[in-house]
Amino acid sequence: MFTHQTTIRVRYAETDQMGFVYYGQYATYLEVGRVEALRTLGVRYSSLEESGILMPVTDLHIRYKKPARYDELLLIETRIETLPQSRIVFHYSMFNEAKELLNTAETELVFIRSTDNKPMRVPIEIIEALSKFFNQPDLTKPN
Amino acid sequence: MFTHQTTIRVRYAETDQMGFVYYGQYATYLEVGRVEALRTLGVRYSSLEESGILMPVTDLHIRYKKPARYDELLLIETRIETLPQSRIVFHYSMFNEAKELLNTAETELVFIRSTDNKPMRVPIEIIEALSKFFNQPDLTKPN
Amino acid sequence: MFTHQTTIRVRYAETDQMGFVYYGQYATYLEVGRVEALRTLGVRYSSLEESGILMPVTDLHIRYKKPARYDELLLIETRIETLPQSRIVFHYSMFNEAKELLNTAETELVFIRSTDNKPMRVPIEIIEALSKFFNQPDLTKPN
Amino acid sequence: MFTHQTTIRVRYAETDQMGFVYYGQYATYLEVGRVEALRTLGVRYSSLEESGILMPVTDLHIRYKKPARYDELLLIETRIETLPQSRIVFHYSMFNEAKELLNTAETELVFIRSTDNKPMRVPIEIIEALSKFFNQPDLTKPN
Repeated sequence: MFTHQTTIRVRYAETDQMGFVYYGQYATYLEVGRVEALRTLGVRYSSLEESGILMPVTDLHIRYKKPARYDELLLIETRIETLPQSRIVFHYSMFNEAKELLNTAETELVFIRSTDNKPMRVPIEIIEALSKFFNQPDLTKPN
Repeated sequence: MFTHQTTIRVRYAETDQMGFVYYGQYATYLEVGRVEALRTLGVRYSSLEESGILMPVTDLHIRYKKPARYDELLLIETRIETLPQSRIVFHYSMFNEAKELLNTAETELVFIRSTDNKPMRVPIEIIEALSKFFNQPDLTKPN
Repeated sequence: MFTHQTTIRVRYAETDQMGFVYYGQYATYLEVGRVEALRTLGVRYSSLEESGILMPVTDLHIRYKKPARYDELLLIETRIETLPQSRIVFHYSMFNEAKELLNTAETELVFIRSTDNKPMRVPIEIIEALSKFFNQPDLTKPN
Repeated sequence: MFTHQTTIRVRYAETDQMGFVYYGQYATYLEVGRVEALRTLGVRYSSLEESGILMPVTDLHIRYKKPARYDELLLIETRIETLPQSRIVFHYSMFNEAKELLNTAETELVFIRSTDNKPMRVPIEIIEALSKFFNQPDLTKPN
């Protein structure tokens, strides 16, 4: 499993009149979580796009436990729990400064070639960067 | 089942550099869908809030099939499929002008008293407005 | 002078914890105002872009008098006060349902060819659509 | 004069289909600039609000020179050029990683008591924090 943590300061623009962060805003926080996770792996999403690879989101699921508030420094934990093939799933847990769990989420993304908008497999550079985080059964060893 | 339809014109602000609507933006479109659905039922969310009832979202799930594009007039179908008790679930289907299904989604919301932030049951005005859309077994009739 | 009016319903996402519309959100409302004004003139901005013409904003100025609130139906008046040449200036006045003036604003936009990102003159279709709204001195008449 | 610098990483959500940051998004960046400037002065805006002081924006003016792009790390310079009285004016200059000037801006904010929404003078803690950055003529000295 690959795990990464990043922090985000809640902006005033991101709150709503209930006094909390707007429920749709968390999708942007998840974007920051996975982009920074990929950057740690040596994969810059902007470079992927320049090389003709797009990563649209195909599934978003958020379970809200507690709201985030203005000016809080949120901790976003992003996890890749299985080595991706044609799709990549990111799991997230978000915490406030009091270390309370605010929400858990998953996003599924696919890889698309920008030239023809066709799906493609996960780029090899992502697989290579991830492979060391996954215990793979060593089939060469005798029992 | 209660079904309602409303339309939304995609704004330039809502697109991203992939040339489509940003994946987090759809949460706002779903908000418009359910608020307009409630308005048709005679329930104005702003009046609920003024009377001390908040409706935070506790679960959001979107399955993206096709992207929406700038300036498209989207059709949002909002459905309440079961009579709510302590939680209300809205189901959504979004279509573009070519009547292609763009995504399906659900949101679950709870009812909170703003005075003490405690959960409460669904307000009676919502139950009354919805009841005529649901077939209820008539228990007064002899078998 | 060309004047156009359109209405926008304030979304919950657009409020902030002060209980009003976030000050940056009005830029999006102005976008809707000018895009709908152009549509009335027969100019669809999405078609302009498809034909290779971009219209970035070069200047934004908003004077806030009163805040807009959730669920209000705002009236946006958009005016083109002078026939544009290399730049087009839109003037705006925004009102709430009580017809109170909320803010006044101007945006200046230029025209850019998407092929080389070079500035260009105002497209002839915009000039033609606008010309009938401007009194032009008739130079052919004898004094 | 008081000057402060902070950086912001451009999020994908903040771009539009022109491939740049949406023009209205910069208002949020300016918010971050002034909030972080105040924090450096020992003034936390969230604490101001908790003590019953609101700071709505009354004027926003942005002059766009060059666009910001996805994933760029922007430098926002925020300046308070005159000691505020009933209003506070922030001046901003934004730069990309190549140190190109992207835009200049000003925002004017007022101070409002949340209990009665009446304007008030600049809180003394802000004046005290700022005073050491302003050369004040020492009238006690003989010429």
